[in-house]
Formats: sequence, C-alpha cells, structure tokens
Amino acid sequence: MTHHSFWPLGFSATGLSAGLSKKKNKKDMALFVSHFPANGGAVFTNNIVKAAPVVLTEERLIKTHGRVRAVVVNSGSANAATGHPGYQDAVQSTKWASEGLQVPTDEVWVASTGVIGTRINMDKYKAGLGRMVKQIKKGDLGEGHLAAEAILTTDTKVKIAGLTFNIGGVPVRIWGCAKGAGMIHPDMRGPRGQLHATMLVFILTDANLRTPVIQRALEWVADKTFNCVSVDGDTSTNDFVSVIANGASGAPAVATIKGKDYKTFRSALHEVCEKLTTYIAMDGEGASRLVQIFVEGARTEDSARQMASIIASSPLVKTACHGADPNWGRILAAMGRSGVRFEPSKVKIWLGPNLVCEGGREKTFDEAHVIKYLRNKKIVIRVNLGLGRKWSHYKTCDFTGQYVGINAGYRT
Amino acid sequence: MTHHSFWPLGFSATGLSAGLSKKKNKKDMALFVSHFPANGGAVFTNNIVKAAPVVLTEERLIKTHGRVRAVVVNSGSANAATGHPGYQDAVQSTKWASEGLQVPTDEVWVASTGVIGTRINMDKYKAGLGRMVKQIKKGDLGEGHLAAEAILTTDTKVKIAGLTFNIGGVPVRIWGCAKGAGMIHPDMRGPRGQLHATMLVFILTDANLRTPVIQRALEWVADKTFNCVSVDGDTSTNDFVSVIANGASGAPAVATIKGKDYKTFRSALHEVCEKLTTYIAMDGEGASRLVQIFVEGARTEDSARQMASIIASSPLVKTACHGADPNWGRILAAMGRSGVRFEPSKVKIWLGPNLVCEGGREKTFDEAHVIKYLRNKKIVIRVNLGLGRKWSHYKTCDFTGQYVGINAGYRT
Repeated sequence: MTHHSFWPLGFSATGLSAGLSKKKNKKDMALFVSHFPANGGAVFTNNIVKAAPVVLTEERLIKTHGRVRAVVVNSGSANAATGHPGYQDAVQSTKWASEGLQVPTDEVWVASTGVIGTRINMDKYKAGLGRMVKQIKKGDLGEGHLAAEAILTTDTKVKIAGLTFNIGGVPVRIWGCAKGAGMIHPDMRGPRGQLHATMLVFILTDANLRTPVIQRALEWVADKTFNCVSVDGDTSTNDFVSVIANGASGAPAVATIKGKDYKTFRSALHEVCEKLTTYIAMDGEGASRLVQIFVEGARTEDSARQMASIIASSPLVKTACHGADPNWGRILAAMGRSGVRFEPSKVKIWLGPNLVCEGGREKTFDEAHVIKYLRNKKIVIRVNLGLGRKWSHYKTCDFTGQYVGINAGYRT
Repeated sequence: MTHHSFWPLGFSATGLSAGLSKKKNKKDMALFVSHFPANGGAVFTNNIVKAAPVVLTEERLIKTHGRVRAVVVNSGSANAATGHPGYQDAVQSTKWASEGLQVPTDEVWVASTGVIGTRINMDKYKAGLGRMVKQIKKGDLGEGHLAAEAILTTDTKVKIAGLTFNIGGVPVRIWGCAKGAGMIHPDMRGPRGQLHATMLVFILTDANLRTPVIQRALEWVADKTFNCVSVDGDTSTNDFVSVIANGASGAPAVATIKGKDYKTFRSALHEVCEKLTTYIAMDGEGASRLVQIFVEGARTEDSARQMASIIASSPLVKTACHGADPNWGRILAAMGRSGVRFEPSKVKIWLGPNLVCEGGREKTFDEAHVIKYLRNKKIVIRVNLGLGRKWSHYKTCDFTGQYVGINAGYRT
C-alpha cells in the first residue's frame, strides 16, 4: 500500500519553519484543513495544568458540537502555564486561521508542544500561519508529510499510519500522524468525559461520521492505545488526540454506534492508533528498543492496566531492558508496589518465550539464551497473576543514558 | 564530636567479606550484637513482594514483643522471591547466629539486600557468620565501621550518623548506619501497623526504652524521613529500619510516650534518621546533587507529601536538575499529574531563593543567576499552592547517565 492510497480526500496539510523552534530551520508549524464541513472528536490531557490550546479546543469542541475545519499546530512552545495572555494568544491564532481560510473561528482548533511556561512569539507565528494558508490555497502539498514533520520535537522519526477500508461498499481513507518522544505517559479523557502524553495526534478520514460516533470510538480506542504507552512516566499538560471526518469519500453516513459500520470504523481507527502508539514507544527519547508489557491472569482489566503501567514506568526495569539483563526480580518488585493485590506465589514471568519465574521464584533458564533474546529491537515481558482471566498491556522503551542527555539540556 | 562519643555501650558490630557479593573482597556480611537483653522496634517494606528476612523478622518482632539480641545482614542477594526454601535459609541463618552467640533464636533478626530471586550461598554464609561471631567474642571491633561498610551495595560512601543526649541527667548514645543507593522510594509500616526503600538502616542506642516507645517513635520519625526520600521511585522488597535499645547507659527507663524523656529520645532519633536520609539521597545511584523539594500552602500534609513524592520521582524534573536547567514548567506539569487538586493560578515556585513562577506563570528571573544556583551540590525546589498552611517535603537526587550505567549492567 502506498501513501497515496490512504491520504483522505478533501484534506490538505502543510508544515514549515516559522522560527519558533530554537533549532534553526526546524519545521515548527503545521496546518490541517478540511475543504468541506467536517465533524471532529478529541481527547485531552487529564493533567490539572492544561495548556491554553487544550482549554480553548475543548471549549470549541463542546460549543460547535464537533464542527471543525482546521487545526493549527506549533512546536517550540507549549503555551502552557502562560495565564490569560497565553489563552488570548491561542484565540488570536485561531482568528488568523479563520480569516485566512475563510472558515468560522469556532471551527478552528489549536495545539502546541514545546517548553512549558514561555509565551509564543506571535509575530513569527502570524507570519508562519499566513504562509501556510497561502500554501494550502495553492494546493499540491503532498500527503501530510510536511505537517507530520513540523509537529515533532525531540522525535527522531516522522510517525504516520493509515489504511483504507469500506463503508457501504465505498472505499474510505484514514490517515494519522503523531509526535511523541518525551513527557509521555498519556492520561486523557474526552470533553466532560472521563478517560485517561505531550503526545499530539492528528487523524483525518474521509468517512462520513457523526460527532458522537467519532467521540465514542476515539475514547474507546485511546484508552487501549495512547493511554497505554509510557516513555518516562510524566504526563504532559498538552496531550491531544483529534479525529476529523469530512465525508468526502461519498460513503454513507455512520450515524450511530450500533451496527457494523461503527465497528468497521472503530477497527480502522484502532489499527491506526495502535501503530502510532508503537511508533511513539519505539522513538521514545533515547530509546534503543521497544518493550511491550502484558499483564495477564488479573481479576480486572483496570488492575492489569495499573500494574502494566507501573512496570512500564520503573527505571530499574527499563535500565535492565537497556542492559539486556534478565533481572525479573525488578519486575516482581515493581508489581509489588503497584497497589494491585496479588499472591506472589502464583506469579509467572516470561521474557519473550522464556519462562523465568514460576510460583514467584526463579525458574531455571538458559541465561545466555535469554540475554540474546533481550538484545532484540522489540521485546515482550509477560506476567501472569494466576487470579483471573482479565488482561491489559503497556508499551514502553528502554531507559538509556541518551534520555538523560536529551533532557538535562532541553530548555537552556 | 568524635565517633567515640556516640557509639553506644554494650554493643558490638562487625563486617567482612564472605564471598557472597560478586565484587571480589567486597565486605558483604555484617553482624550487630547487644551484649545485654535489649528491646527493638522496626518498620518494614509495604511492597506486596516481601523478602524472606523481612517476613521472618516481622514474625520475630511480634512473637518476642521486641526482645532482640542480634541482627545478621548480608548484601549480594536479597533473598526475595525465593519461596519457602529462601525462608528456611533465613531461619537457618538465625539458628547459626543463635548457637554462636548463645542467645535465643527468636531474638535474632535478619536482613538482606542485593539481587532479587537468587538464593544465598549458605555455605559461604555459614562460614562468614562463624568468623563474625568469633570476632565479636574477641572484642575490640571499633565502632561499627566494618558493619556499616558491609551493608553497602552500589553505595559509594559509608553512611553513619549519631549523637549523645541525656535522659534523667545520664548521657546516652545513639548510632545508626544506612545503605541506600538504588530501588529507593521507601514505603514502610510497622508490624501490623500502617506506615510507608532497599534501604537498610540499623540504629543502636544504650538508652533504656520499652518496645512500644521505640516502635511509636520510629514510626513517627520514619514517616517524616525515610518515607520522604526517593532515588528512582522503585520501592524495594527488602526495606527495613530497626532501632535496638539495650539500656547499657544506666539511664532511667522510658516506659511511656508521655513526658519529656520520650520527646528527647524521639528528637535524637529524628536527627539521626534525618541525617541518614540526606546521605541516602546524596549518594543515590549516579547522583551529582541533592535535591530537596518542599510543597507548602497545601490543604493537608498528606496531599503535600503526595505532590512532593511525584515531583521527586519525575524523570524530567530530575534530569533538568542534572542539567542545572531552570525548567520550572516540568515541575508544574508533575504537580498537575500528582492526583492532588489545586489551582494552577495560585501556584508559586522557587528555585532556591529565586521566585520563577507566580500565579502559575513565569515570573521574570535572571536566568544566568538561577542556573548558577542550580549548579550547587544541594538545591532546594519550593512550591506554594496557596490553599492552606500544611506542608511536606521529599529528598531526592538528580538523574544522570551514570544511573543508567549502574543499572543496565547490575545483575549479569
């Protein structure tokens, strides 16, 4: 499947360097535009300290019942902890986009990522936004690569996923891009709702979807994907995932969450989000390998998820993964402080296919063999509590000296 | 004050290399002995996965109402996740000590630290213990330095604190040693009780104290000291703090928690524990500086402590401290995910004497000046929530590339 096959009809996106990032010539602004009226849904960080763009976009989503035409994004400054002036900056940015694109101000969303506590340089922002609007009007911008690149901060790779599927026999496209890297331990919820990174994700589809359909599917999917990834255990002030559907495929409308069309869409969304989550974990700051953690045999899915989250956040587990050290005792110790009740004597732990702990004790294993396994780019840690049939999982990465290097000198 | 002045009367302690540690000639066994009947109190890890020595010592403490004569300690293996055989090893070790020292088996406590999931080499252990018993009987072992050295693992420094104080006009001595470094985020409680590292701490005093007096004072003090320190956020299976009092000073007995003698003892204990806690944070794995976090203006002490704990565990805050980066936005973001309710607009943040955030926004500050402050060996982060008068604090250290280096290759 080439990229051409899943870039949705009726959307344009671009990205450029507006001089907001401290890295010279780093693309730092992106613009996503639907050329048709569209519906959108979103989940936002649950951090008590919410960035101005998060607050404003949530207000807009509620006010317009999900009507949306464009999203303006910048990296370099998170516009968080900037008070009312920061909020006014966010409002102003949507006004400029609205004027340039000739769409209602309320139908413009905004997202930011970067340093917390610094104001955005609005002169540069305005100039950059103006140039992007011109580019969008000229057309022929490719398929979102410029935008996908512009939203990155400490990421080393562009993260794009997409696919095509059918609704009512009509092919529809779904495309998404993400930014991850650091301050990644998403805890997101819907507007007014209750769900659980600076992770920014922008998903576009030419399916014809009603707002509640988008919102319901996104909350369900985010809870199983983005809310199950951790790089460093720090939850951002700016996490934001949006899905915008403009119906440009001509496929029949999906108006309810009953029936197979909803499930078809949700599955497609799930696949895109699962891939983006994996890319985020693999490209975590300083990461050299992807670590997938499965907690099985739990009494409840929530308890399994809680335990997986604690294992995924343990510096000792993550440094052992970096060293390809089969130190399962650190996994067991992290489980024991997770707040989840269990019987250590019932615990089994696998490193990949290798059972290394049974009955809460070491199961003799071929050390050299397991070390070899742990040197893979992708490793799996599997835990069974022996208490029930519920399970959950978390994606994370190893913890390296590079992580410290990246973050000890980020701001200054 | 020289060391001679606070080594308590009637105690001996020693340490030697029994070949249990993978580091050649590293002292790895210690023995603390009271030459008189003594009372002891202790707090133990709250991790669900408890090492065999933790389980056994807690049983003994309850059974004998705190009567105790000796503590045997080893490093190299934690004797955790070793099942019933590991528990039998712990029992056996106390039997050997009991026979050698001619004290009741039930009055011997045991503690271990090291790799989780591996059994102790009991032949080497028995030989080492036998040699330590002979040394104790010969006498003239100095003042605990050998023991204080033997309990260390990845620690770079011996940690000893002590002082003298008076009870009923009679001088009494209190001495303590600690091991810290990694898997440090203590959450300890008393036997049957409810409090919150592998941190091991052994405190000896020649005061004359009843068991409940020791236990009550220790739980109060541990909650304000050891339970407020974090190196890596990982709570160990083996954390154990003990206080043993043998009355050899000849000072009058402290039989109740009412009256000034209790307060005098508790203050002395607090001073020793506060110093040991500071030494643990300063010598955290890979640490280059001590970071003290104060959360003030909270509605409750518990909420202040919870928030201080989250800030102290944030990899992004700790790497910024390493880089001497005045990135107060990371502090605010960590506060926002702490689970504590607050109003971002009321928040003030100081880095040392420098107010850097007011009203939840940046307060213009002299960047070069603050960076210079953050390059000190000891730095203070102070947060005020503006909600009430309660406060709490946490001690931690910066997060460095050395931490990763130490832990990526620890076991294998």
